[in-house]
Amino acid sequence: MSITVVGSVALDTVETPSGKNIEGLGGAAVYFSLAAANFCPVHLVGIIGDDFPERHVRLLESKQINTDGLERAPGKTFRWTGRYHDDINERDTLDTQLNVFADFHPKLPQAAREAAFLFLGNIHPSLQREVLEQSRRRFAGVDTMNLWINTTPDDLQDVLKRVDAIFVNDSEARMLSGVHDLRQAADLIRAMGPGIVVIKKGEHGCLLFGQEADQVFAIPALPLESVADPTGAGDSFAGGFMGYLATCESVDFDALKRAVVYGSVLASFTCEAFGPDRLIEVDADQIAQRYAAFKALTSF
Amino acid sequence: MSITVVGSVALDTVETPSGKNIEGLGGAAVYFSLAAANFCPVHLVGIIGDDFPERHVRLLESKQINTDGLERAPGKTFRWTGRYHDDINERDTLDTQLNVFADFHPKLPQAAREAAFLFLGNIHPSLQREVLEQSRRRFAGVDTMNLWINTTPDDLQDVLKRVDAIFVNDSEARMLSGVHDLRQAADLIRAMGPGIVVIKKGEHGCLLFGQEADQVFAIPALPLESVADPTGAGDSFAGGFMGYLATCESVDFDALKRAVVYGSVLASFTCEAFGPDRLIEVDADQIAQRYAAFKALTSF
Repeated sequence: MSITVVGSVALDTVETPSGKNIEGLGGAAVYFSLAAANFCPVHLVGIIGDDFPERHVRLLESKQINTDGLERAPGKTFRWTGRYHDDINERDTLDTQLNVFADFHPKLPQAAREAAFLFLGNIHPSLQREVLEQSRRRFAGVDTMNLWINTTPDDLQDVLKRVDAIFVNDSEARMLSGVHDLRQAADLIRAMGPGIVVIKKGEHGCLLFGQEADQVFAIPALPLESVADPTGAGDSFAGGFMGYLATCESVDFDALKRAVVYGSVLASFTCEAFGPDRLIEVDADQIAQRYAAFKALTSF
Repeated sequence: MSITVVGSVALDTVETPSGKNIEGLGGAAVYFSLAAANFCPVHLVGIIGDDFPERHVRLLESKQINTDGLERAPGKTFRWTGRYHDDINERDTLDTQLNVFADFHPKLPQAAREAAFLFLGNIHPSLQREVLEQSRRRFAGVDTMNLWINTTPDDLQDVLKRVDAIFVNDSEARMLSGVHDLRQAADLIRAMGPGIVVIKKGEHGCLLFGQEADQVFAIPALPLESVADPTGAGDSFAGGFMGYLATCESVDFDALKRAVVYGSVLASFTCEAFGPDRLIEVDADQIAQRYAAFKALTSF
């Protein structure tokens, strides 16, 4: 099975208590692709400007990430600048320059249309819908954010009706559902369409709600000795989750639980270095070892 | 094995989004005792005023909780008044009346001195030390709070040198260690004395750090459909933890992990009703069922 991901490709400038990374490779679709490509071939659909370093494209292609859907447009690449607090779970966005991303309309090459798994990164829900209309996927996951929940609720609801899984953080789950309790929130979100609700809680781990009412799974985050840069952890989580799922014979609750663990594994690697540096280096043995570490951490 | 617990016995007035409970049975030592008594006999050491309803004493005694160490003093019982926010993890203390608790000096009856397990509830560290001097325990656990960490650090350090386990929440762990990262915090706290560090994170579960450097266990909290009143959840956790441990042949890391789960089980029951109402009713079958629910929640 292969996966298509549509989302941002960016040059990120990030400052954390550990240091600073200027105009490094970033963007949700990049983190997702790098994580998912540990499991299966990925089709990346996004847009870059004419200032995007070619070495980044070559890096992605070296990792079974197909970039035929990576559009090159005149102008500058999307840029994001953020600063993390001493409490690394808090960050401020200092600057966002959409640049070529402002006029992006995703165009899926044939192979990307045919991919069995589709992940809609956090872009305007009307663009997510354009992607859904082009795709012949069997399973679609979606990410969103407070901005779309608040400003384009109808477009978002239309997307939610047509996807299988949603990835949100706890505050997004509360905003989308209108309730504080995460279990009630998950029930309400499932009623909007996606049978599978994944609620990411950062340093506090993750909750998975399956298609059946009693299917709940919780996993803590790995207590890391130090977190260099959590940028992209959520996208790496989704990539690890969807990538593993694409290797499974069927999407049952046991497979979903393991997918959550693989998502957590990839997210934990991402946090260990700036940008996707650690994620780029990770190999199958290290992933297996960290999966075992999650087992040891949580087994009793 | 039996356990001695020393701490507050109170009349609590609590308001939560679900309702209000006026001058109900409360206090850390009460929650601890009720939770621990599901596993082993408990000696409760505390102080009450002459206004303390006798039915509460009879209730405790009906649960294999020995109240020979429950001192009765002229005057009023310790009272605490608090109000929880819509986000039930946040609360304000509206009023604290120490009353007879202000002049409390714990006096352990002979049987309480001999108990193999000792839990020092959250009282002034100099009182905790008085208890340590009276006790012939084999294993001591301690609770503390930001107040003592800030105002009586030397007394607290003296206590920490002499105990086996400490129960703190995440903000207390950070304050006590001076570092934000909980793994580093646990290492620093272990260097102060207690080989076992339990960090309670409320709705986000719990972290356990064992005597060996690589012994880490994490468990999420059970996602409850609704939380009526979390008062006493932390004390119930400690009671379930210590109570289970008192039934184990040896205090190894596997036993400690199961103790964390039993602590979480008892804490989850406490949250389901006002005050200790649910904790009073719980039976061995329900505890076993909920232990299995934690297994299902976390197994992959």
